[in-house]
Order: sequence, then structure tokens, then C-alpha cells
Amino acid sequence: MKIINLDHLSANQLLPEVQEAMIGTMRETFGNPSSQHRLGDSAAEALDKARGRVARLMNCPSEKEVVFTSSGTESINHAIKGVAFAKADKGKHIVTSNIEHNAVLRSLRRLKMMDYQVTSVSVDAEGRVNPDDVAKALRDDTILVSIMHSNNEIGTLQPIREIAAITRERKITFHSDAVDSVGVIPVDVQDLGVDLLSFASNTFYGPAGVGGLYIRRGTTIWPLLDGGVQENSKRAGTENLIGIVGMGVAAELALRDMPKRMEHTGRLKDFLLRELPNHVDEYILNGHPEFCLPNLLSISLKYIEGESVVLMLDEEGVAVSTRSACAAGALQASHVLLSIGREFADAQGTMVITFGLENTEEDVVRFLKALSGAVKTLREISPLYTKSKPA
Amino acid sequence: MKIINLDHLSANQLLPEVQEAMIGTMRETFGNPSSQHRLGDSAAEALDKARGRVARLMNCPSEKEVVFTSSGTESINHAIKGVAFAKADKGKHIVTSNIEHNAVLRSLRRLKMMDYQVTSVSVDAEGRVNPDDVAKALRDDTILVSIMHSNNEIGTLQPIREIAAITRERKITFHSDAVDSVGVIPVDVQDLGVDLLSFASNTFYGPAGVGGLYIRRGTTIWPLLDGGVQENSKRAGTENLIGIVGMGVAAELALRDMPKRMEHTGRLKDFLLRELPNHVDEYILNGHPEFCLPNLLSISLKYIEGESVVLMLDEEGVAVSTRSACAAGALQASHVLLSIGREFADAQGTMVITFGLENTEEDVVRFLKALSGAVKTLREISPLYTKSKPA
Repeated sequence: MKIINLDHLSANQLLPEVQEAMIGTMRETFGNPSSQHRLGDSAAEALDKARGRVARLMNCPSEKEVVFTSSGTESINHAIKGVAFAKADKGKHIVTSNIEHNAVLRSLRRLKMMDYQVTSVSVDAEGRVNPDDVAKALRDDTILVSIMHSNNEIGTLQPIREIAAITRERKITFHSDAVDSVGVIPVDVQDLGVDLLSFASNTFYGPAGVGGLYIRRGTTIWPLLDGGVQENSKRAGTENLIGIVGMGVAAELALRDMPKRMEHTGRLKDFLLRELPNHVDEYILNGHPEFCLPNLLSISLKYIEGESVVLMLDEEGVAVSTRSACAAGALQASHVLLSIGREFADAQGTMVITFGLENTEEDVVRFLKALSGAVKTLREISPLYTKSKPA
Repeated sequence: MKIINLDHLSANQLLPEVQEAMIGTMRETFGNPSSQHRLGDSAAEALDKARGRVARLMNCPSEKEVVFTSSGTESINHAIKGVAFAKADKGKHIVTSNIEHNAVLRSLRRLKMMDYQVTSVSVDAEGRVNPDDVAKALRDDTILVSIMHSNNEIGTLQPIREIAAITRERKITFHSDAVDSVGVIPVDVQDLGVDLLSFASNTFYGPAGVGGLYIRRGTTIWPLLDGGVQENSKRAGTENLIGIVGMGVAAELALRDMPKRMEHTGRLKDFLLRELPNHVDEYILNGHPEFCLPNLLSISLKYIEGESVVLMLDEEGVAVSTRSACAAGALQASHVLLSIGREFADAQGTMVITFGLENTEEDVVRFLKALSGAVKTLREISPLYTKSKPA
């Protein structure tokens, strides 16, 4: 049975061009970019080329502002802890939102164990941060603001430009977790005005375990990894050249094909939204109708458990998720859904669909059919559902 | 011109079996090991399999004690900072040696900026730490000892077992940087008695940008990367599955072929040492004659600059280095060579040769011929050399 992947946030098939570039690097480029002899020359060139491609994807003014990391998570940890440690003498207060990814939340929780203080601003029912709330949360000892570009569970986009205007005026460093945005929708670091921006290769059909951090020139930040002088002394460690080359090619293709990809996934999302009421009832759509990722859809199905839906759809060969793979295994209700006002039960009944390049309308039809069956079966055995209906 | 690689510490060609495994993963295994659906199953299996292979290479009692990282440098940063932060309430004193890799030295320098104190024990003329010196350096507030397993510039092996006996008795956490040992010579974490051990895949013909950290069960340590629950909640971030699979295969081959490889490189090293006096004079061999890596040789050539030798050999198609690629670009004399008592000028005239699988006696002959010519040319223009000779 061919499995329909509607969980592209967790995993993408590598594009053929990405695979070929990685295989070519594996076979032909074996030097170390930092070597003193010519064996390292082609490796250094490959690294530069990839850096240029990634820089262009985000319109970085200088390639040197791109630091390669091992994941979006590392980029986020680097940004948050790197600024917190480097600016500790200026203050220990950080502002964030209450719907951030676990990499942000847990980096901040870690810093709290080291006497940092964190103010978390709320979001509205569509998951948007109000820039005024960020402004109000700032203190004289605030050293960092970290607000995500797009949310990985409900797809809501944040008013990053407006927040950046506030932080710039106050001379406070601003980091944005753009892991689910970069390569999917236009992200221009100059236009946004952020100081730090995290991203990951696997979001745009590059290999997993490769990420990057945009560090605006002049930003005060410590490396997370100390040691050698790689990455302009901003991140030590021998480079994952094969992965970085793959990310570079994926970045170039993402930039070239972005309008086409956005239109494709947007069309599938619209189609699903139109057809959904004909297959299930009593559901809530999460996130903002306009300011949202074109490839993500979050649906809370009343009276049932999202986990059960995922398992039943898996049996039918359709892969969806209840939330990001990073949080799978954790059994709590989603902090994002609770933050936008979902009740605990509805949060537990939530399913996240992320479309990708290879999806078709036929995939959506098969998904809807499988979903309809799963929801019917699950509600029949749900005490919540039975109770909600007149006998 | 075929280039002779005598700088295997910087870079290795990936073994064919490693390449094939990585390509297979790239083409067929695209799920996320943490996914909730079956697309992630094969990825999770591949990850487990690699972990088992790496665990066996070091005789880890449990596979769960192996944490995959993005490099030896990340492993070292994780070990040192992770213990320092987690045990800050017990004390802020750390003991190390003065010939550690930059990843250790600079992690410790970073901690000093955060009010930690570091005692650095000296080494003897062959680069060995005396365990008694470590014992003497311990204080009531010592929380960590970090001593490398083998040195990356002179190859000297340290008395890790003896040091571990001391730290265990004092209930102090012991980390060993074994990046240049694991996969090259037998390293058995149970026999050594270490709590933490860092290693890297590219040392044993696996891909660069993949490393690991052995964390003995029960060791108090914080993650360096906070976020998701990957790696048994010890290291967040979506896994570099392609690289990890490559490391797993490389680990299995390293374990199987280790005796053969050690004999091969050891024979080449002996051959070079025998022939060397017939090609150059006035040199010093660095490191310990017995307790040393079988694949590494460090030679200080008097009256000349190592950098110049490296460049001239590069012209002749022979790749050697003056020290680890991580430190290339830094212009200071090697802290390792100064620590074993080399004069500044001799330290600057040092060349490191690391043999690999594909090297032959013929490579050594070609190297010696090129070296002899380079040394002659460089000494002719060296004011130091001219001055040392009677007119």
C-alpha cells in the first residue's frame, strides 16, 4: 500500500536533485574545509556555495551571516542561550510568547534554572501575538525577545516586522524561530528586521539534521559550540558537508519553486476545507484564516482523541500527526491549543495536516474517506460523544 | 596527480560500505524516527541499529548510554558544559590537562567567563599526564575532570583507567575526549571506568559532522540542546539519520577490522621512522614512543616553518598538516608542543602525519623524497639554519 504523507512537517522525501548533490559530495569531495592543503579545497568551495544559496533564500545581506547548525533546534538553542549568556551582565529578562516550539520553551526553562526571568505574552484566539503586548512586557533588563515566525501546530504567522520595529528602538536583540517558514513562504531577514532567525533544511526537502542560524552582523552572541574556528568562529565542529550541500541545493530549489509550491499546497488545503463538511461534523479549525502557512491545517475533532485518529488513519495508509514529531511521546495536551482557548478535550482531539509537493487531490479524497470512517467508529465508542447527544 | 593523503585526522574518504548505507537511507528511509505513524518506523529502526553498532564499538553496557551528536566538538561541549551547569550547586571547579583539544580548552575558557575555576595539570616531555597530579589538583568543589584519551597532535595516550579510579573514589564526574581514539584503537568504556566519553564518526571513515557522547547511566548532566524528546531526552533536535546510519556502518567495520588496520598503519609508521634519518637530519620526534596512536607521527623539523613544509609538500601532491584542521587559521604556536617543552621555533617547525587504510610504503617513499627536497630548500633560505652552522 502506498502511504499518503500528509505529515510533511515531520518528514519529506529528499528531492532527486538534493540526493544527487549529496551523493556527488560523498563520492568526490572528501576533504576537510579547514585543511591546510588542496585536499580541502573542493570541500571549502562546496561549503561556500551552499552558504551562498542559503543566504539568498532569506535575502541575507552577507553570506557570513549564515551559520550552519545541526538542526532548527540547535539554531534556537544557540540563539537563545547564546544571547542570554553573552548579555547576562546587561540583564537576565527574556520575552517570548506562550505558543513557541519546545526548543524555545525548554531553552527558556533551562535559563530559568540559571536565574533568568521570562515573560510570556498571550496570543489571541487565532494564535496571533499583539505587538503592543510585547512592548508592554519589555523591561530595562530585557536582553532578548523570541517570537516564532509561524506556529508548527496551527500555522499562524506572527507580526514579526512590527515586533522587530519595537525591539530595534529599544536596542533589544530579537530572535525569530522560522523553522516552519523558511523555504515554504517568503522570509526576508532584511525586510523583517530580525537579529537572529532559525531555520531547518528538512522543512524544504533538504536532509534532516541540518539547520542554520541567521546572525545579523554586530549581534552580541556566544557560540553554543566552542572549539575550532569553523563558521567564522561562530560555531565550532567539523562540518556535516554532505548534509550542508544537500541543504544548499534544497534552498536554491525552494527559492525558485516557492510560488508554484505555495499555490499547489494552498489549493489542496482549500479543497480539503471545502470538502471537509461533507465528511465529518463537529470540528473546529485552528489558527488564523489569513495569516497562516499555506501547507498546514489544524483540525480539532470533537469527542475523540487525536492519537486514535492518527493510528486509524495509519492503518488506512494515511500519515497525519497530532502535532510536531518533536513532541510525540509527551502525553500532555498541546500548550498551543490551550493557549488559543481550546478546551482540554478538544485539544486532545486535534490533528495536524501538512501538505507537500507530491500530494494530489486524490490523496485528499482518500484521506477524507478514511477520516470519515475513523471519526464515525471512534465517536460510536466515545462516552463524551454519547453524552452530548439526546438519548 | 593523485594526491597522497597523510592527513587522515582531517579527512578520510568514506568507505564504500558506508557510502552505500547512506545512499540507501537517503533513497528509501525518509521518515522521522519520532513520527506517530508508520512512515517513521523504518527511520526509528535504522536509528536503533546504528546505536547498537556504535555501542558495541566501545563496549557500552547499554545502547541507551550512546547519544548521537553533530561532531566530536558538540560531544565535548555537551559533556563539559552539561556537567558544569548541572552541578553548579555542588561546586564550580574543573580539572583538565594543558594539552587538550581546543573544544575542551575553549569550553573551559567559556565557563571561566561564568565564574568557574579551572586547574590545568602539566604533562611530561612525552605528553603524559601523571595521575597523581590529577589527584593533587582535586578540591572539595571539583565537579568534573576532563582528560583526553589520545592527543590529536602528538598521539600520546593518557592513563585514563588510573585517573578514573581516582575520580570514582572521590565521586567526581570524569570525561575523556576520545575523538582520535575511538574506532582507531580499542576503547572500552567499562574497562576505562569513565563517566563520559566523546567520539566522532570521521575518525573511523564515517561521515564528518556526526559524533557521539557516551553518558554512563546515572551521570548528572544537562542537555546542551533543549527541546524535543529525541535521544532519550538527552539531546533534542531532528536526527541526521543519513549521517548516523553511515557512522553505524563505519563503527561495525572499525570493530571488525581494527587489528588489521592498526597493524597496517603501525607498519607504515615504523617504516617511515626507519627511513626518516636517511632523508632529513636535525629533527625531534614528539610524543610517547610506546603509549601512542599507531597511525600518528609528529616531527619537529629544526630551523624551518611547518606551514611552509605543508605548502611545499602540497605542491608535490602530498597532504600533511601542522596540526588539527580545527586549529588551522590560528597562527599561534601549538600549546601542545610548548607544553611538552618544545621551544617556540621547533614548535613552529612541526608536521603531523596521520596514516590511513589506503596508504602504502610507496606513499611513504614519495613523501620522504618530497620532504627531503622541501627541507633542503627551506633551510637554505632560513636565517636560523644559517646562523646555527659554522661559517
